[in-house]
Amino acid sequence: MGVINSKGGFTLPGESGYEKLTLELAERWGADVIRDSDGTVLSDEILNSGYGIYSTICIIRDHNEWAKKNPDKLQQTFLMTQPKTADDGFLTFHLLDDFFDQQFKVNDSADSMKYWQVFDRTTGREISSNFWTYEKEAGNVTVNNVIPWHRYTVSFLAYRIWEEISMYNHTTNNWDKEHLMPIDPVHHETQEYMTKWLTDWCESHPATTVVRFTSMFYNFVWIWGSSERNRNLFTDWGSYDFTVSPKMLDSFAEKYGYKLTAEDFINKGSLHVTHMPPVKTQRDYMDFVNSFVISYGRKLVDIVHNYGKKAYVFYDDSWVGVEPYSSRFKDFDFDGLIKCVFSGYEVRLCGGADIETHEIRLHPYLFPVGLGGLPTFAPGGDPTRDAKEYWNHTRRALLRTKIDRIGLGGYLHLVENYPDFVEYIEKISNEFRTIRDLHTEGSPSTIGAKVAVLHSWGKLRSWTLSGHFHETYMNDLIHINEALSGLPVDVDYISFEDAVKIDLSKYKIIINAGAAGTAWSGGDNWNNPILEEILSKWVFEGGTFIGVNEPSAIEGYDTAFRLANILGVDKNTVDKICHGKWSYELTTIDKLIPEGAYIPKRCRVHLTDGKAKVILEKDGDPVFTVNDFGKGKGIYLSTFETTPINNRLLFNIILYAAGLPMDENYTTDNANTECAYFASSRKLIVINNSDSKQSTSVKTESGVYKFEDIEPFDTVIKQL
Amino acid sequence: MGVINSKGGFTLPGESGYEKLTLELAERWGADVIRDSDGTVLSDEILNSGYGIYSTICIIRDHNEWAKKNPDKLQQTFLMTQPKTADDGFLTFHLLDDFFDQQFKVNDSADSMKYWQVFDRTTGREISSNFWTYEKEAGNVTVNNVIPWHRYTVSFLAYRIWEEISMYNHTTNNWDKEHLMPIDPVHHETQEYMTKWLTDWCESHPATTVVRFTSMFYNFVWIWGSSERNRNLFTDWGSYDFTVSPKMLDSFAEKYGYKLTAEDFINKGSLHVTHMPPVKTQRDYMDFVNSFVISYGRKLVDIVHNYGKKAYVFYDDSWVGVEPYSSRFKDFDFDGLIKCVFSGYEVRLCGGADIETHEIRLHPYLFPVGLGGLPTFAPGGDPTRDAKEYWNHTRRALLRTKIDRIGLGGYLHLVENYPDFVEYIEKISNEFRTIRDLHTEGSPSTIGAKVAVLHSWGKLRSWTLSGHFHETYMNDLIHINEALSGLPVDVDYISFEDAVKIDLSKYKIIINAGAAGTAWSGGDNWNNPILEEILSKWVFEGGTFIGVNEPSAIEGYDTAFRLANILGVDKNTVDKICHGKWSYELTTIDKLIPEGAYIPKRCRVHLTDGKAKVILEKDGDPVFTVNDFGKGKGIYLSTFETTPINNRLLFNIILYAAGLPMDENYTTDNANTECAYFASSRKLIVINNSDSKQSTSVKTESGVYKFEDIEPFDTVIKQL
Repeated sequence: MGVINSKGGFTLPGESGYEKLTLELAERWGADVIRDSDGTVLSDEILNSGYGIYSTICIIRDHNEWAKKNPDKLQQTFLMTQPKTADDGFLTFHLLDDFFDQQFKVNDSADSMKYWQVFDRTTGREISSNFWTYEKEAGNVTVNNVIPWHRYTVSFLAYRIWEEISMYNHTTNNWDKEHLMPIDPVHHETQEYMTKWLTDWCESHPATTVVRFTSMFYNFVWIWGSSERNRNLFTDWGSYDFTVSPKMLDSFAEKYGYKLTAEDFINKGSLHVTHMPPVKTQRDYMDFVNSFVISYGRKLVDIVHNYGKKAYVFYDDSWVGVEPYSSRFKDFDFDGLIKCVFSGYEVRLCGGADIETHEIRLHPYLFPVGLGGLPTFAPGGDPTRDAKEYWNHTRRALLRTKIDRIGLGGYLHLVENYPDFVEYIEKISNEFRTIRDLHTEGSPSTIGAKVAVLHSWGKLRSWTLSGHFHETYMNDLIHINEALSGLPVDVDYISFEDAVKIDLSKYKIIINAGAAGTAWSGGDNWNNPILEEILSKWVFEGGTFIGVNEPSAIEGYDTAFRLANILGVDKNTVDKICHGKWSYELTTIDKLIPEGAYIPKRCRVHLTDGKAKVILEKDGDPVFTVNDFGKGKGIYLSTFETTPINNRLLFNIILYAAGLPMDENYTTDNANTECAYFASSRKLIVINNSDSKQSTSVKTESGVYKFEDIEPFDTVIKQL
Repeated sequence: MGVINSKGGFTLPGESGYEKLTLELAERWGADVIRDSDGTVLSDEILNSGYGIYSTICIIRDHNEWAKKNPDKLQQTFLMTQPKTADDGFLTFHLLDDFFDQQFKVNDSADSMKYWQVFDRTTGREISSNFWTYEKEAGNVTVNNVIPWHRYTVSFLAYRIWEEISMYNHTTNNWDKEHLMPIDPVHHETQEYMTKWLTDWCESHPATTVVRFTSMFYNFVWIWGSSERNRNLFTDWGSYDFTVSPKMLDSFAEKYGYKLTAEDFINKGSLHVTHMPPVKTQRDYMDFVNSFVISYGRKLVDIVHNYGKKAYVFYDDSWVGVEPYSSRFKDFDFDGLIKCVFSGYEVRLCGGADIETHEIRLHPYLFPVGLGGLPTFAPGGDPTRDAKEYWNHTRRALLRTKIDRIGLGGYLHLVENYPDFVEYIEKISNEFRTIRDLHTEGSPSTIGAKVAVLHSWGKLRSWTLSGHFHETYMNDLIHINEALSGLPVDVDYISFEDAVKIDLSKYKIIINAGAAGTAWSGGDNWNNPILEEILSKWVFEGGTFIGVNEPSAIEGYDTAFRLANILGVDKNTVDKICHGKWSYELTTIDKLIPEGAYIPKRCRVHLTDGKAKVILEKDGDPVFTVNDFGKGKGIYLSTFETTPINNRLLFNIILYAAGLPMDENYTTDNANTECAYFASSRKLIVINNSDSKQSTSVKTESGVYKFEDIEPFDTVIKQL
């Protein structure tokens, strides 16, 4: 028994002028819905073909006529100049020198300038506005009476005059249409305009069954530089800098009773990257903006619903304030969430959201060039290979969470010369529907040990850190998330506030993974002794704390890791350079390490009291250790790198931590394969994650089943 | 013209029972002095042979009879137990559990116990002595009313019952004589005993011409653990922990008006390692102990002088308080300083001290086993190879500073089976005397650009960090020091206090090299904005700041390196993970990089404003950059590793920084060779640092001289 051909749950990007191709592929791939894409339109022939119709709207752009009449209602951001060193009595800054002048325009209105700040970065002190002047014509700030050899910066507000996604598409896909400008719904007039525009749109699009918002109002932060040698000055998929405006800040002050300054955003030039623990002003501001996005967003969704259409939201681009794991996400009243996926964790992110329809947009997009700049549907590209790779990452997560729909995006005509690709999409569409139907009959089994991932953001950033894997690969946690996404394990994401509040006894394993000072390790949160007390007690009573890289790291204590006593290892810091280190012998734990698994060395650690067992080492340093602490354990990994085999290592570690055997029921005995068991339908699904034939056995309550010679990357289903 | 055979300036370790060998080698190696060694005695035949006689005394050990009668006058130290986690209402610590019981004995006298401390390390708070009790018989401290899951430690005073050098020799050289106990001259009674003992000793040793102190009173810190898996708990050649006693602490409080606590030494278990920036309590205490060591030390030196003998001090072992670069060192009135050397920087350390006679003790010692535990004069050893290697390191430093004497240590009879070794020592003794005589005629030339090395200790720790190269190799600065030790450059070591006080214009180059937070990088010193002002101005006006690894690193500012603006690079920190990085092309500077030179990557940096020139990169990160700043430059090296070729790279960097050509006069054009020019005698000395034949040219004011086929490791002298 295996994958069967079926129909539905597939969103096809239609393309005007390619009606025959559109309808042919809709049939072949089992599409029930046809969509337009950013930059494409659907012809009447397609609209009237009987398929459901998705229409993409991005409410904040493509209103250039209105935008030109209302240049003071464009979206904004704070920017900080590069520091300049004073070698004279004054310093002059041409504000936009460092920035891409097609993206920004200084907002030098009076209500903007009251937020500008000049800082002496040598002392960290703000310079009173009595000591600097702005020359409007030249766009210069001159700071007088500077202290020689101190370094100064100017923080100011700028309008964003080119919507970033269209700016990106211009560059990547060589668009040459007019630059779209992002308008800001913070203004009453903008809201009035948008409301009317959406109403008109609904009126004039009767064929549309689903309105897909891309996404709401504010883009993730993407600041471009003036030099081609450093075009991407800053990219953060999670930050709120692009929501800022004098009006938003003034309203915030009114509601919260205190004023935010430019420096609350600029943060010495670092900005508040999502990878760092959030500070209070940031959390307050996010809360405020999130409220606004939801309240006005809901009004737009209501309009769509009033026209009998569904409203889906695309999680990307202008998604700031649309966090699917925020407690208020339901208030939008969206009918569906669409997530484009490269990786398994993105599938889980989508699948775990509390919403009716979960749809994933598969990669590669039908674009000549991919997100990384390499060719896809262009000479040198191999879209079928890319699709296989992405499918291999996403399929294992599809086994664990129910996704209702899949789809593609882009220009359909590009597939014409790639029959392989067409065939492969047909194959995986059927695979997808088969897996989805298994979920419909009942959930897959998980091992009886629940995992919590502990970090500063907790549930709000379940599964994701911020953005895509290739943007965050340097963080240990994204590898852990990706590995977990396909494991038969229940996972919660909890914050440090949660950890001291909720009953941790429901978790068998808590993971804390990241570099010191990051949101993922936790930074200052570890100053709280209650956290140490609660986690120590929880481990002592039987829990397993898995620490990766610099877990629980905080300066100012006797150990670099707050939980060094639980882990039995601590970081080699410079103040311990004269201290001897325990020698050790390696310990082997039967079947724990699959052949080909490895743990790279990222953080150098030593044994604290010599009792921790060293399982793996690298160049003389422990990289994987296990320490007994009461009835529980501390497990340390120097870092973690997701590969099919390493994912199995993580699963084995979880089994070991939970006191379960490595050959637990419904576990394959070949690390190149994984399986899921759907108990209600008594179906066992086995996937081959490798590019070669694999055989495996799976122990079940009803005996051991053998799967011989599973084809490369293939999926096999067995009725037990 | 070359090395000539000569006599003198050589101290030979004589050995009783091997009189013939002793006198034969004294003749062959040109010795003028015969010495005893730790563990050897000289017979009358040797004493009366007409040679000068060095006698080694270690004033604080070898007095076991007196020590046993005065067990309360043994030397002491603070110790801290390993932290224990409370899983009940009380915690019991057996104080010596973690420590080598042959080295320590708890000092549980009343005047000691008032210094004991119990800490809650979870909160960092001390526990009042009302809440803990000591059971003398069991040697246990019990802490009551502990907070569950907090971690606690006990700090206490222990007597040191085995003098550490004799403990080491027992272990390494398999001694099995009685354990020697270190007595503490802080007590009046000990001073009385020592004074009398030394007087008696001088009376009974009329043949002795030089008394060699090893060294004064207090050993460097060397704490051994109870487990063979972690015997060396802590080793620091620079710290003062072993000088501590209730009496010393009480006297300190009387003089300084405030009391030190155990925690002032224990420092959360880190102790105050020399590699970290000193804190005020530590500086005060060092100053106090230093005064004491000098004042009582001077009394002992006076006794020696009264007997018409000279007093030399051996810089090692019990040398704490004998820092040769302290402003009070002269007050000892020593006649000579003896430094054992593995490396060039130790030669410079000795040669630069303000004292009449500078003597170096060459390695290898005549011991079966070397300091690292590998065989020397034992099967598997190759003492001649070792001697060549050490000579190659030391010779280049001997070219730059005048050393008056060399010598060996250990058991002379061990050389009997190593005729190669005997011959090699003969060769290098003549080389040494030749070089020494050149210095006597006049100093060698240096380039006209003075270098300052800037770190927390300044002059006090000129040339050395603390201890030997193999103990400190992980610090960037020791590699820099070693490279500098053989370069024709004048070098000062200055502190951060110096930097803001003295006229920096006398320096062309300032080097700051080390990991963030270390004494060598500077840690909190960089909080001082005056430092930034002064250094910025100095560079702007033409100086070159060379930063290595994490120079000027301090948290809390907009940049990780305080002088990022001067260097043009800054460290990649986690808060900048979303920030784009400047791309760059490599820049070539003519003749700057000798073939075979390299800069490893230790710290990952990025360009700040894109203007710095990247000279070398490693795996996509800059590791060597040059940045213009005013008339001066910031030069960044990710780290530095001393090798003959890399030493030349550093010299080239210095020449470049000083605006001098790479083929400056009196510079070899082959990086495997170095030269020194003694202008007064018009002698040019060229050394081959490699194990193969080398040829080189040297440009001089009187033309270019060619040196063809210099033998491996050979020394050539030319009269210009």
